[in-house]
Amino acid sequence: MQQVEIGAAERQRVTARLADVLPVGALLTEPRALKPYESDGLTAIREVPWLVALPESESQVRAVLAICREHGVPVVPRGAGTGLSGGARPRADGVLLGLARMNRILEIDLDNCVARVEPGVRNLAISQAAGEHGLYYAPDPSSQIACSIGGNVAENAGGVHCLKYGLTVHNVVGLRVLTIEGETLELGGKGLDAPGYDLLALMTGSEGMLGVVTEVTVRLLPVPPEKRVVLAAFGEVAAAAAAVGAIIAEGLIPAGLEMMDRLAIQAAEAFVQAGYPRGAAAILLCELDGVGAEVDAALAQVRRILIGQGAFSIRVAVDAAEQAKLWLGRKAAFPAVGRLAPDYYCMDGTIPRARLAEVLAHITALEAEFGLAVANVFHAGDGNLHPLILYDANRPGELERAEAMGARILAQCVAVGGTVTGEHGVGLEKLDSMCGQFSPAELDQMHRVKHAFDPAGLLNPGKAVPTLVRCAELGGMHVHGGVLPFANLPRF
Amino acid sequence: MQQVEIGAAERQRVTARLADVLPVGALLTEPRALKPYESDGLTAIREVPWLVALPESESQVRAVLAICREHGVPVVPRGAGTGLSGGARPRADGVLLGLARMNRILEIDLDNCVARVEPGVRNLAISQAAGEHGLYYAPDPSSQIACSIGGNVAENAGGVHCLKYGLTVHNVVGLRVLTIEGETLELGGKGLDAPGYDLLALMTGSEGMLGVVTEVTVRLLPVPPEKRVVLAAFGEVAAAAAAVGAIIAEGLIPAGLEMMDRLAIQAAEAFVQAGYPRGAAAILLCELDGVGAEVDAALAQVRRILIGQGAFSIRVAVDAAEQAKLWLGRKAAFPAVGRLAPDYYCMDGTIPRARLAEVLAHITALEAEFGLAVANVFHAGDGNLHPLILYDANRPGELERAEAMGARILAQCVAVGGTVTGEHGVGLEKLDSMCGQFSPAELDQMHRVKHAFDPAGLLNPGKAVPTLVRCAELGGMHVHGGVLPFANLPRF
Repeated sequence: MQQVEIGAAERQRVTARLADVLPVGALLTEPRALKPYESDGLTAIREVPWLVALPESESQVRAVLAICREHGVPVVPRGAGTGLSGGARPRADGVLLGLARMNRILEIDLDNCVARVEPGVRNLAISQAAGEHGLYYAPDPSSQIACSIGGNVAENAGGVHCLKYGLTVHNVVGLRVLTIEGETLELGGKGLDAPGYDLLALMTGSEGMLGVVTEVTVRLLPVPPEKRVVLAAFGEVAAAAAAVGAIIAEGLIPAGLEMMDRLAIQAAEAFVQAGYPRGAAAILLCELDGVGAEVDAALAQVRRILIGQGAFSIRVAVDAAEQAKLWLGRKAAFPAVGRLAPDYYCMDGTIPRARLAEVLAHITALEAEFGLAVANVFHAGDGNLHPLILYDANRPGELERAEAMGARILAQCVAVGGTVTGEHGVGLEKLDSMCGQFSPAELDQMHRVKHAFDPAGLLNPGKAVPTLVRCAELGGMHVHGGVLPFANLPRF
Repeated sequence: MQQVEIGAAERQRVTARLADVLPVGALLTEPRALKPYESDGLTAIREVPWLVALPESESQVRAVLAICREHGVPVVPRGAGTGLSGGARPRADGVLLGLARMNRILEIDLDNCVARVEPGVRNLAISQAAGEHGLYYAPDPSSQIACSIGGNVAENAGGVHCLKYGLTVHNVVGLRVLTIEGETLELGGKGLDAPGYDLLALMTGSEGMLGVVTEVTVRLLPVPPEKRVVLAAFGEVAAAAAAVGAIIAEGLIPAGLEMMDRLAIQAAEAFVQAGYPRGAAAILLCELDGVGAEVDAALAQVRRILIGQGAFSIRVAVDAAEQAKLWLGRKAAFPAVGRLAPDYYCMDGTIPRARLAEVLAHITALEAEFGLAVANVFHAGDGNLHPLILYDANRPGELERAEAMGARILAQCVAVGGTVTGEHGVGLEKLDSMCGQFSPAELDQMHRVKHAFDPAGLLNPGKAVPTLVRCAELGGMHVHGGVLPFANLPRF
């Protein structure tokens, strides 16, 4: 969507109308106030919004949407702004709709084991509120202290534990959503199934393009009574990757199964001294949870597999303090890698786990080709890679080289049957990679679905699903039967 | 959608074209051959199809869809025809597209713990094929010997174990789908997440109205090493219902948690002598699975809760034979209830489990009001009710009375925050109840999504989502802000 031209008089009218429906202090118009909203966690892509609206209730959200719709003003919804793909990057011609002030926990319903919350509630705050009942909310993106559940829904956020407990979409049971036309949709609920089309899952991960979420009902799980954490070190990356496949193939589903390669291990050790074996080409961190006997049985099985796959060192944490220490290196890995080079570019792709060794070898080959180092720290169990490409933005051309290398990695993910994102979403960052992921027919179908919710294309325009024109211009288009169905294409 | 008028010459042309693209014997045209396809498991609603096409490959499905689209002929997809809501009821003016001959298991992928199969593969056949690797496919509708995975996807089928393991939508990771326009969509895959809108979940449970599934990739789980089955009897239905809530509220997630009321218990005992206590007002059957120590710990916890909630008899099966015997009464309950009256009408609704006692009391009140007895046999753990309304179709007015009573039960499910279906789908049976479940805005949104996939409305027209006109004529419409948005309504 092109930038919308808005005359000064019209701007004044819209601003006055928005100020009318929002509380004092909830409409930001001054450059200094707008500046902090210019990007989300993908800070490389910025644009200062025209206005920031910070409603405190659903009725205020409805009023803002009605005004924007009437005047044809684009609306970009935003949670806590921790997203890494630019999904909440604002527009200079649009309203940034920040939902952080809608942060009330409405209900903890123990009979149904669910929590009903407003979208601005922080992810961790849900588990804290449920904790006194022995319950918690499972998905735990690494930003969980700060990120909001509404943003989690928009991006279908994951985390270390989604291998066993699923992504956001598997843990949300109900949503209240406003369409840009101001209609309220109640999707799902406390019951397990719902009739009609599954708009609940469709809305989850739709990156704020189909509607604005005003209430979220999430499933709460019992806090597992016990956990065990085991660290295994390997002399070869391929052996560590094979161990991941072998664990899953035996039917074990660890709560977390993480992998770090040599560069990531060295960086983490230098930063926090977690005690990882420095000679390792790769380590695996495996967390098992459940009742004591269950995790002990699983631990014995995991040890046997790790030894069989050639681990040269296996260490089981003896207590909670040692567990925390083993996790510390993993949790500090991103900032630790940040000390190795002036900048890094965090990729996010998913592959079938059977292809781990092959894709990691491919990344090693790309390091030589592009002359850039890569540290790998990732959710191995679910095949979700996070290659961190090291570069120096002050050296001319390095950012572009890092981006080109990242695109090649994602293309390889798709080539082996994976996807261009695991848990960070598409946003603006991966629009081009989507052209390789999907056929024109598939992208066209997504545009049609968008059109069914937002015919005017005002909600978060230009994110998540590339136009076929963009794909065609890229030249990297996934041509399907030789036909590009431009005729049917809505152009946002 | 009105019946389509097709002239004799046109009929001949379409028939000849279909015969051309299908193998010999795969296009049924004779009344005797068509008759078995006149209904699915909802035998009360029948219509002999114009033609039955039985393709054996995706390319044949594509060819059939292309011909039907070109000639404007409605297409009703069908799996094994075991559905209970009329979702596969054919049309006299349409082609019934039976997918039962596409029944190959394409791949058992152990590294990724998935199976890739054609849509006509029977549900149980997947578990049988995976069994030699210690794996199985979790959702187990009671028709699992016969029903096909394609039909499971269309109706988002459940089963006894979906409390712990989820519905079909939670166990399908990838689909290949043909749109009516003949485009191929690859949705999901072996990776955990996918970018773009979640069309995979949208397609699951869409009752054959958005596309035709030609390949399904399902998640396989390890067969649990141990299970325990416990039977508890209660003197009051409300106490049994409270026990269900208490079990879940403690964070236990049994593999199955089933309830039967007095009439169902008596019928089952008379039929198969499972050894259920005859004096009970209600029994609970609870299955726990996992490793031995885990299930033993859970069993102790369940026993404590059952005693605390007033169970007068608790029996734990000592071995697999006794487990099977305890389950036998539950599994035979439907045919057993069938012996109590000439006919029964099997309802399917879901409620938040905290409201179980209240809704069961309401059903008892309705028995008196309508003068019809109800046997309750249901998935209590996930609040999925299956009231069986007993009636005699030969007595004038009884079928209508049973249907009216069923509609009242479903209305009550919605009133307490539940839904009009748990696992049987909407099909034709529950179109009217959908008017109470959803607001006009919500139904309108579903029609828009349908339109985004099938603008001509040729795929399984008239199922699953009622037109707003139908809802308005019913008078029972969920009026929303006083406005009926007929202007935007596509009319199928």
